[in-house]
Amino acid sequence: MSDVIELTKALINKPSVTPEDAGCQQLMQQWLSESGFENETMVFEDTTNLWSRKGSHAPLFCFAGHTDVVPSGPESAWDTPPFVATEKAGFIHGRGAADMKGSLAAMLVATRNFVRDYPDHKGSIAFLITSDEEGPFINGTTRVIDTLEAREEKIDWCLVGEPSSTDNVGDVIKNGRRGSLTGDLIIKGIQGHVAYPHLAKNPVHLATPALAELASIVWDEGNAFFPPTSFQISNIHAGTGAGNVIPGELHVCFNFRFSTEVTDSELIKRVTEILHHHGLEFDIKWTHNGQPFLTGSGELVESAQAAIAKVTGKKTKLSTAGGTSDGRFIAPTGAQVIELGPVNATIHKVNECVKAEDLKLLTQMYYHILVRLLA
Amino acid sequence: MSDVIELTKALINKPSVTPEDAGCQQLMQQWLSESGFENETMVFEDTTNLWSRKGSHAPLFCFAGHTDVVPSGPESAWDTPPFVATEKAGFIHGRGAADMKGSLAAMLVATRNFVRDYPDHKGSIAFLITSDEEGPFINGTTRVIDTLEAREEKIDWCLVGEPSSTDNVGDVIKNGRRGSLTGDLIIKGIQGHVAYPHLAKNPVHLATPALAELASIVWDEGNAFFPPTSFQISNIHAGTGAGNVIPGELHVCFNFRFSTEVTDSELIKRVTEILHHHGLEFDIKWTHNGQPFLTGSGELVESAQAAIAKVTGKKTKLSTAGGTSDGRFIAPTGAQVIELGPVNATIHKVNECVKAEDLKLLTQMYYHILVRLLA
Repeated sequence: MSDVIELTKALINKPSVTPEDAGCQQLMQQWLSESGFENETMVFEDTTNLWSRKGSHAPLFCFAGHTDVVPSGPESAWDTPPFVATEKAGFIHGRGAADMKGSLAAMLVATRNFVRDYPDHKGSIAFLITSDEEGPFINGTTRVIDTLEAREEKIDWCLVGEPSSTDNVGDVIKNGRRGSLTGDLIIKGIQGHVAYPHLAKNPVHLATPALAELASIVWDEGNAFFPPTSFQISNIHAGTGAGNVIPGELHVCFNFRFSTEVTDSELIKRVTEILHHHGLEFDIKWTHNGQPFLTGSGELVESAQAAIAKVTGKKTKLSTAGGTSDGRFIAPTGAQVIELGPVNATIHKVNECVKAEDLKLLTQMYYHILVRLLA
Repeated sequence: MSDVIELTKALINKPSVTPEDAGCQQLMQQWLSESGFENETMVFEDTTNLWSRKGSHAPLFCFAGHTDVVPSGPESAWDTPPFVATEKAGFIHGRGAADMKGSLAAMLVATRNFVRDYPDHKGSIAFLITSDEEGPFINGTTRVIDTLEAREEKIDWCLVGEPSSTDNVGDVIKNGRRGSLTGDLIIKGIQGHVAYPHLAKNPVHLATPALAELASIVWDEGNAFFPPTSFQISNIHAGTGAGNVIPGELHVCFNFRFSTEVTDSELIKRVTEILHHHGLEFDIKWTHNGQPFLTGSGELVESAQAAIAKVTGKKTKLSTAGGTSDGRFIAPTGAQVIELGPVNATIHKVNECVKAEDLKLLTQMYYHILVRLLA
């Protein structure tokens, strides 16, 4: 069996449901030590992080990723046990196979091969690994970055192993991500009996014109790198279940995924103005989940595109679509950041799996990126 | 302490959240037995009803009411515990104080006093008490009436103790009620991740313009006996709590209180047209809660007006506004039906309360109605 397959399976067999690491980082440390890396464990609250580096010179290339996985849900819904790596018809099945234990294995094998083949490579290589990417992302990458910044340790190029690919491994590189902003809104009314509407104020009736307006707004048109900013109501609740009571409050939770054409403070200002314009009495709590970031071009994007072309013979699409990733914490330091990993069709679902052949191709892509940047 | 106050408090202290009776009817039976009534408990499914009668001759005067109350909502929102009767500044606080345990206490005390003062009164007196008035009203008054109709037991005059008064006890008698029609609406969308809105269809976004239109419509202007038809959304729900998921369905529950200027089938037709006009995919379930009814004039209305004038020196307004009551099940038998009870300003709200002095006045009103009709 190839090293990357064996290592992927060993990682899947460790049930590292967020924020548990379950020994994954220890296994990675063994591999990295054998390749000459110095390991530094950074524990913040309930989260174990690994910063592992070989070399002290600039430029610094960093692989970033996470060992934690989302819960499996009911195991009975799976065709194979989620925490027992199972190979079937060319695919490795198990929670984390695609998001992102296969990527971690590919990084380790590519790095071992590269330092073996190019012992006198220039610059340095590092691994930034956390176990809270799928959780509240408070004690993971963001705190490791804070630590590195405090000691002026600078990442030049960062490759995050998130499953970026759509149909075939390497068909998409994520070179940025939209920003995310959440609003928890409470529209206030006055509770009462449906038979006495003049004694009550129905917050649902008061709010619907404002919500209809918010849902119909074109916030921006996006740009060359970003799709248009999107507003979505994820939750709406009013009423106790009783059919004869006018509710006293309406709770609405909504989320913006926003491009670089708008800022979060502009969105907040505009939403607040609309709510006031409709004469609503309301409370709102804003949660900033991340600013948008973009690595428009540069050596990292070019090396990745060239490496993918070398391995697959195909062109790669740049994209900023999809969910947030820890890249948003690394990009603000000035690092070039891209995400490149396996096909994401099964992530966060039952029967998550990754094509074994894709992991071998991904290992070669990572290897050739190192060659182009550091050989 | 006066009997009516003591009895009101004892009933409030029994947490009879619909359809629970919590021992209220047992307490009423003790009082009625002592006044010479024969108690007949009628249990239908989950609902306990009491039919208690003194005398076998016509005409039959009946007090009707309910022991159940609506839920309190979060107890922390109350100034006093909702199920501990608390007297403050001349008011008795607690869930059910005004709707309608105070009325039940006033009926019992008035009846005891009347049969004591007029032992040879003509006709008969009865109590029709249910514990499902605030719930689905399937196994309460309607089934007791069915039972009475089957054995040809006929009510001539029925006084329902619902809180009919607006500013001062006795200022309003309800001599009819609007119709009530409930719609349970499911707007269908397609669930998805907020980061991929083009793969989903947000049912909240689709529905808000239609809901805003429904909330803004003037359905009719009412007439001499009825206020305008009213539309109220009582419950609205979508989303699982997760902030990153576009919900697949929106559930909306709404209620019409309608005058005799419109019919329930006209309302159904118009709502359905509006939902279709907005291009919505939806399921809707209609519940007919009652047609409008009216007791225009007669001995009962006149006796009540005279009794109120005797006790307060004031004139009384006839009204058909407000919620449905079990009067709608009694009126179709041919009985004259009115509602007379305390001020309804706090019913179904936090800090529900009733003025202690008003309960004493209400007891006198009930007493003098009995005197005028049966002495």
